[in-house]
Amino acid sequence: MGSAFAAAAAAVRPLDRAAEAEAAALQARLTKPRGALGRLEGMGVRLAAVAGRCPPPVPSPAAVAVFAADHGVVAEGVTAWPQEVTAQMVANFAAGGAAINVLARQLGASVSVVDVGVAAELAAAAGGGIRRRVVRAGGTANLAREPAMTVGECRAALDVGAEVAAELVAGGAKALVTGEMGIGNTTAAAAVIAALTGRPAAAVTGRGAGVDDAALARKVAVVGAALTLHAAAVAEGPLPALAAVGGLEIAALAGFVVGGAAAGVPVIVDGVIAGAALLAAAQLVPGVADRCLAGHRSVEPGATAVLEELGMEPVLDLGLRLGEGTGACLALPVVEAAARVLREMATFDGAGVTDKGAG
Amino acid sequence: MGSAFAAAAAAVRPLDRAAEAEAAALQARLTKPRGALGRLEGMGVRLAAVAGRCPPPVPSPAAVAVFAADHGVVAEGVTAWPQEVTAQMVANFAAGGAAINVLARQLGASVSVVDVGVAAELAAAAGGGIRRRVVRAGGTANLAREPAMTVGECRAALDVGAEVAAELVAGGAKALVTGEMGIGNTTAAAAVIAALTGRPAAAVTGRGAGVDDAALARKVAVVGAALTLHAAAVAEGPLPALAAVGGLEIAALAGFVVGGAAAGVPVIVDGVIAGAALLAAAQLVPGVADRCLAGHRSVEPGATAVLEELGMEPVLDLGLRLGEGTGACLALPVVEAAARVLREMATFDGAGVTDKGAG
Repeated sequence: MGSAFAAAAAAVRPLDRAAEAEAAALQARLTKPRGALGRLEGMGVRLAAVAGRCPPPVPSPAAVAVFAADHGVVAEGVTAWPQEVTAQMVANFAAGGAAINVLARQLGASVSVVDVGVAAELAAAAGGGIRRRVVRAGGTANLAREPAMTVGECRAALDVGAEVAAELVAGGAKALVTGEMGIGNTTAAAAVIAALTGRPAAAVTGRGAGVDDAALARKVAVVGAALTLHAAAVAEGPLPALAAVGGLEIAALAGFVVGGAAAGVPVIVDGVIAGAALLAAAQLVPGVADRCLAGHRSVEPGATAVLEELGMEPVLDLGLRLGEGTGACLALPVVEAAARVLREMATFDGAGVTDKGAG
Repeated sequence: MGSAFAAAAAAVRPLDRAAEAEAAALQARLTKPRGALGRLEGMGVRLAAVAGRCPPPVPSPAAVAVFAADHGVVAEGVTAWPQEVTAQMVANFAAGGAAINVLARQLGASVSVVDVGVAAELAAAAGGGIRRRVVRAGGTANLAREPAMTVGECRAALDVGAEVAAELVAGGAKALVTGEMGIGNTTAAAAVIAALTGRPAAAVTGRGAGVDDAALARKVAVVGAALTLHAAAVAEGPLPALAAVGGLEIAALAGFVVGGAAAGVPVIVDGVIAGAALLAAAQLVPGVADRCLAGHRSVEPGATAVLEELGMEPVLDLGLRLGEGTGACLALPVVEAAARVLREMATFDGAGVTDKGAG
């Protein structure tokens, strides 16, 4: 193919089992009872396996990429917020006033906003700081009536994501955080998750940014009907499925995840939109999910479906459902701590602390 | 009484309901769907109520106080680690090599180690940096045979804790983190929790730093027998109960919690030892628990008993059981984020984002 995505996919290596074993052995020599740091210990071991080094490098600074796009499916009345909010929030990101900006500033992470298909003209409001990588002007087609994208557009979005990941790592990012914005995108994410897991629409469709019971029922019906309409594409494999029922930012995020995995940095995955992207990435490129950490458990049922499907345990569980990358960003200090424990803690020998041995 | 603890107890104010209401109203105007930041939103509102200001101040830098003491109950074979490890770990804290040091460094928090009754002579190993506030040299008596402390010693430990809290806040701390070290202290904590909640020993006693089945059975039996032996003191109230079955560092932590509450800063509470202290503090000084946040859910069953008793939901749940203040320290960035969201996020009006209203 010669594309950025294909190159990244080919560059994803298996986890480094030697570094992993070395990190597990090191955990047992640190001045704490074996296992007393709970999930932090396994996280540190995984970071070593991802980096191919023990102790693992500190995964900081991190870079958040917020991919933004619009969704034709909003015509079906599946959202509580008008489509114009996508562009307004992109301007809010550019101005530094959104939740993801606040969290990233606190945690020393950069925020890059990438327009892959926002419906409105952003130039005036945004005032610079937005990467224009529009794959399809105006956003996706209405997946309830026709394919959301062509396979070619989907590939182009995958390329943009892989390219942005490579750019951010080249710029010094030691970890990547998935972010997104797109009114209507929880409908597309639910459709992708249903398509790629075989789960029924009702099991993976949630209230997104807060629809009422009637709109939720419409949303479930739209997702269910889309799976029937696009059954042939879905049966063909993850790429045609993603094109038929996905979103431009979801495809870009799938490319971003693969790009991060190829670059050897951990990718911290946010909620249901990022989960749909991760699922697609994992089916397109085996081994990718091993290089990702689930930042949090979104309240969206589709997010939990993805975690179950991939056997991942999220770092945080705070009842978030905002997206933008907020939950993944909040997980960064815990992930960083997992690496620092392996790098900085004293060993029993070194500190002269009596070791009771494996209990 | 004229003591530091009594003065702190008298200074604890009720939560500021006006600041709380102002913060709740502000949450609804920020550029996010109502409730989309999940538990972060309530946390921010609580921080405003604690500080008496909206938006609340940023709870950073934080100060960790690690209270260390030994326990006569180790004579009963309830621990996997020898008593000398308490002093060795105190030296490790002083040298900066323990887990709490690593996490505090990462998160910009200070660590103060306070010896309130460590059995060994620490001077040689520690090399400065340890606050000597010994209440009872050599640690507590064996609570399985006699009262762990006199009521006077317990009061003295409460005073030390309250004084250290005041010192740290005077030194610039905007949040306090409870830390501790003391081989045998999960047995004392279980006894305190059983005494103050009326729960059976088996329901609140865990494996601590990792005892095997036989030692766990001994531990449950020791806690159960201690409750019978000290039934009169337990019936008398929280102070005699704490003296009879507690620990010097547990009493100091109870004073520390009250001192932090009196100073108007949030206190982030760690695991089962800190939970026992918080429970005692809450029974001695009503309203104190409202000014605390539970940093994490320790795997120790007693920790969950305390959370249930006080109706608290922990920030993190990572399977930690190390103590030292590690789980509470790891929660700091989330707590800080809760404050920063209220201080820094744009409002719908300010950012020109369409508000769909309460959904």
